Amino acid sequence: MKVGFIGLGAMGSAMASNLVAAGHTVTVWNRSAAACEPLASLGARVASTPERAAQGEVLCSMLANDRAVREVILDSGLLDAMDRGTVHVNHATISVALAQELAAEHARRGLDYVAAPVFGRPDMAAAAKLNILAAGKPAAIERVRPLLEAMGSKVWPLGEAPERASVAKIAGNFMLASAIESMAEVTALTRAYGVSAADFLEVMTNTLFASPAYQGYGRLIAEQRFKPAGFSLPLGFKDVGLAQAAAESARVPLPFAGVLRDSLLEAMAAGDEDLDWSALSLVAAKRAHLDEREGH
Amino acid sequence: MKVGFIGLGAMGSAMASNLVAAGHTVTVWNRSAAACEPLASLGARVASTPERAAQGEVLCSMLANDRAVREVILDSGLLDAMDRGTVHVNHATISVALAQELAAEHARRGLDYVAAPVFGRPDMAAAAKLNILAAGKPAAIERVRPLLEAMGSKVWPLGEAPERASVAKIAGNFMLASAIESMAEVTALTRAYGVSAADFLEVMTNTLFASPAYQGYGRLIAEQRFKPAGFSLPLGFKDVGLAQAAAESARVPLPFAGVLRDSLLEAMAAGDEDLDWSALSLVAAKRAHLDEREGH
Amino acid sequence: MKVGFIGLGAMGSAMASNLVAAGHTVTVWNRSAAACEPLASLGARVASTPERAAQGEVLCSMLANDRAVREVILDSGLLDAMDRGTVHVNHATISVALAQELAAEHARRGLDYVAAPVFGRPDMAAAAKLNILAAGKPAAIERVRPLLEAMGSKVWPLGEAPERASVAKIAGNFMLASAIESMAEVTALTRAYGVSAADFLEVMTNTLFASPAYQGYGRLIAEQRFKPAGFSLPLGFKDVGLAQAAAESARVPLPFAGVLRDSLLEAMAAGDEDLDWSALSLVAAKRAHLDEREGH
Amino acid sequence: MKVGFIGLGAMGSAMASNLVAAGHTVTVWNRSAAACEPLASLGARVASTPERAAQGEVLCSMLANDRAVREVILDSGLLDAMDRGTVHVNHATISVALAQELAAEHARRGLDYVAAPVFGRPDMAAAAKLNILAAGKPAAIERVRPLLEAMGSKVWPLGEAPERASVAKIAGNFMLASAIESMAEVTALTRAYGVSAADFLEVMTNTLFASPAYQGYGRLIAEQRFKPAGFSLPLGFKDVGLAQAAAESARVPLPFAGVLRDSLLEAMAAGDEDLDWSALSLVAAKRAHLDEREGH
Repeated sequence: MKVGFIGLGAMGSAMASNLVAAGHTVTVWNRSAAACEPLASLGARVASTPERAAQGEVLCSMLANDRAVREVILDSGLLDAMDRGTVHVNHATISVALAQELAAEHARRGLDYVAAPVFGRPDMAAAAKLNILAAGKPAAIERVRPLLEAMGSKVWPLGEAPERASVAKIAGNFMLASAIESMAEVTALTRAYGVSAADFLEVMTNTLFASPAYQGYGRLIAEQRFKPAGFSLPLGFKDVGLAQAAAESARVPLPFAGVLRDSLLEAMAAGDEDLDWSALSLVAAKRAHLDEREGH
Repeated sequence: MKVGFIGLGAMGSAMASNLVAAGHTVTVWNRSAAACEPLASLGARVASTPERAAQGEVLCSMLANDRAVREVILDSGLLDAMDRGTVHVNHATISVALAQELAAEHARRGLDYVAAPVFGRPDMAAAAKLNILAAGKPAAIERVRPLLEAMGSKVWPLGEAPERASVAKIAGNFMLASAIESMAEVTALTRAYGVSAADFLEVMTNTLFASPAYQGYGRLIAEQRFKPAGFSLPLGFKDVGLAQAAAESARVPLPFAGVLRDSLLEAMAAGDEDLDWSALSLVAAKRAHLDEREGH
Repeated sequence: MKVGFIGLGAMGSAMASNLVAAGHTVTVWNRSAAACEPLASLGARVASTPERAAQGEVLCSMLANDRAVREVILDSGLLDAMDRGTVHVNHATISVALAQELAAEHARRGLDYVAAPVFGRPDMAAAAKLNILAAGKPAAIERVRPLLEAMGSKVWPLGEAPERASVAKIAGNFMLASAIESMAEVTALTRAYGVSAADFLEVMTNTLFASPAYQGYGRLIAEQRFKPAGFSLPLGFKDVGLAQAAAESARVPLPFAGVLRDSLLEAMAAGDEDLDWSALSLVAAKRAHLDEREGH
Repeated sequence: MKVGFIGLGAMGSAMASNLVAAGHTVTVWNRSAAACEPLASLGARVASTPERAAQGEVLCSMLANDRAVREVILDSGLLDAMDRGTVHVNHATISVALAQELAAEHARRGLDYVAAPVFGRPDMAAAAKLNILAAGKPAAIERVRPLLEAMGSKVWPLGEAPERASVAKIAGNFMLASAIESMAEVTALTRAYGVSAADFLEVMTNTLFASPAYQGYGRLIAEQRFKPAGFSLPLGFKDVGLAQAAAESARVPLPFAGVLRDSLLEAMAAGDEDLDWSALSLVAAKRAHLDEREGH
């Protein structure tokens, strides 16, 4: 297929590479052009503007946040430059409100829109093992399915309204944040009684909680290895904010969100903005003054 | 080995059965004698008093809570009736304070004490697949290891101080409660945008959260199947209370505990005391008035 | 003094009336012109555009929220139409971020800016008994002091940076929300033991909590009189949001905010958006299922 | 009247003194006898046992907490030593559960029981300006009214069931804790924008929150004067615990309680157990790392 790909951060680059590897004709664009070079060396064409990347049958985009999506997709006039019938597959984690706005703006122009946020870190993107949520018209999803399957191990259709995929992605990240905070709090408790985070989490993450989320973040907490950040505290704060915004619009109380918000803010107030969000465990330990007790 | 077993609820019966099946000479006692019969038919001896059950090399007990342990083990004079050198293996989920008191009372009488709370429901106990935490003197743990291995798939030693196993068990249950509340809140959110709990949790519990805890409770939430309770709301409330009590003694703030406590109380205020604690999802849905919106 | 006044809601009308009554030459403007008539009958001039209202020595404005301020003051070009040296006194409760932006936009054009949010409801505005916070250059505050004193019983200077008055107003409203939630929760508790909200609050609001805030909202809670709303639930939600936004920028955890946010959302999810925010007490009572117990 | 008085801490001594001053025949007892001397010098008789103090028409007691009341009143056999028809006026702040148990134990022996917890610190007790809650049989309350009026400025009858006075006292202390936490959080926020706690609280406690509770604790927060403690952090924690226990029995969610509990625990984890509970403001400031920012 003729595909454009906009947004070549760590995730986008890996995803676009897999499209090239699967034999698709891929044209890439990125705000800072340097990120295009590795793709070019794999065989991708490099577009000088987003409009040129959007001339294929499908445009995929993987931008950082609401602001970037708004600038590059909505405010730039890009949609007006696309041919009717083109499918835009948006992989970014964005707000429910923006997902709804994007759906309307595409529909108005006869463009198809598929919301397709992903679960997985860059290494999983590189291995084409992402889990890809997909919301949009069934026909549009079917049309882009070969692309999604080239980038992920599984596609999870969630219905037609694009905000469904957004809210599911946001909800999934909220579960991750809750899992981290939960481990942060209980390991503060076990440590206070002499059971290290490593010993306790070894039990739990090999039994009841033997899953990628708990094993991955449990290891970071056990080893207190918060740098380099796989997903930084401010990104976590942003995503809890997306959950709160979606909850506000739909009038859904989310009591855990208030706790998560404050724990993340407290971590950031300490100046730790570059740490992984599993550094929530530092906040829980500090509240209990554990380091002082343990003689650090 | 000659073993006594006190406390034949659903868990204790299954555990004692496995000791019999492994060829040990087991003498059982239970407050209401009827529960002894199935064990007797498997070959266990039935004691008329706890003291008689405690005449072997090892006494195992699986009682319901602090109160039952205090009555049957401490206030009854049972410890005074046991021979020096006997090992008492306590499988109950009890408070850290009682664990410490029990350790001291056993030590004073030359009895060995192993705190060995378990993770697993009755079906796992029947299949000898429990995960068994163990804290106590290494020699005592080694002595009873054949018994533990007859009842569980894995033994997790956590050091010498018995409260270490208590706090780990309590912390594990706190992680379960947090996982349930997390699923309850986010599925209220996704439902408000048209994504059913079943569809959303299918994604999450087959990917990042593919673990027994999330799959088991996720299924109950997706199917709204809260009866019969595997673990009832009041038991959940009791265990969150054990976490708060341990946290109070050790001065460890636990922000999630406050949320869990109130959600459980709200569920119980609705008169749902006989429901499984995954019925926390009813509370989250009610706060958002989801049933009214969805036209139920 | 020659004064313009923009924004004639219940508060603004009462405040502008007092300026007229004090002998100032007042020119008013309001989006819907009908609100100007009562002022005209008192002697105010009516401007056809905001620009014309802004031709005096001082412009006062009392607009509803950030959006209205942005539209009428910033996006309209109004500031460009004002003479250098004019003082703009902004009485609206706005975000800290907008307060900072406004200060910069005024400074760039040689205009003086005084942030002067007020405490008090329309009846206090009518009686010229508002408490008026004031942040801005001391000279500018002194220049407008006769106006402020015509509208309020007391002026509270808070320094030069305009966001100081904003944050103080937001913080004050946060204290009000917390006071209401506190009364909501404890009266749910006392009711469960047979002590009515009226009986309990009579004690507290005549002793330790004998203050306007507790007496006013305490009466509404005791009498369950939530309509017509003096300050509606959505306005309360907006103001808690302003506190959270200010807290986010400054990295200040606010644990009570999470609770307030969810209680307000829960009240709004019940469809009670037109009720006074003291209707938080309905939420607390509903969580405890008090009406069912009391046989309502 | 012939009155006994048990429990001569700072509060009890001041209260008993006022009974003597009002011309009653007062017999006092205290665990450590030294506290009886000042009363003796004012004209009180000193009893060598609680039983002897309980031989008058009325026995007043002002003991520290549930444990002390249980020991001195219930476990000691004191009630059996009292004449039928004697009224026991219990001024202690105790749990709802113990209030109910005491009522039953008195009734069983033909003794009258009046629960009469008080609001006010020692200086107000000395000035006979306490606010005294009263629950019990109307006739019994009337009988002891002269005593109550000698100790307080106002008596607030709350019905017959003694737990009503208990829950009202507990609820009142919960309002105090919430007021302190609310001031702690918002002054952290205003400080982050350059408005000192003193400047901000001067506005609020002279206007909307012009009440003894806010003015008293507001002053401590503004001046950071947490020593000597008028009411220490552990006492505050105990009282929040009484609210949670009452809420648990009656199934009433109390979201603010979870926040208060953790803030108090965090303050105590810092080793500040001897500080006044208004030191909650230190916790709020520490979470936001304010001292570091302000260059302390």
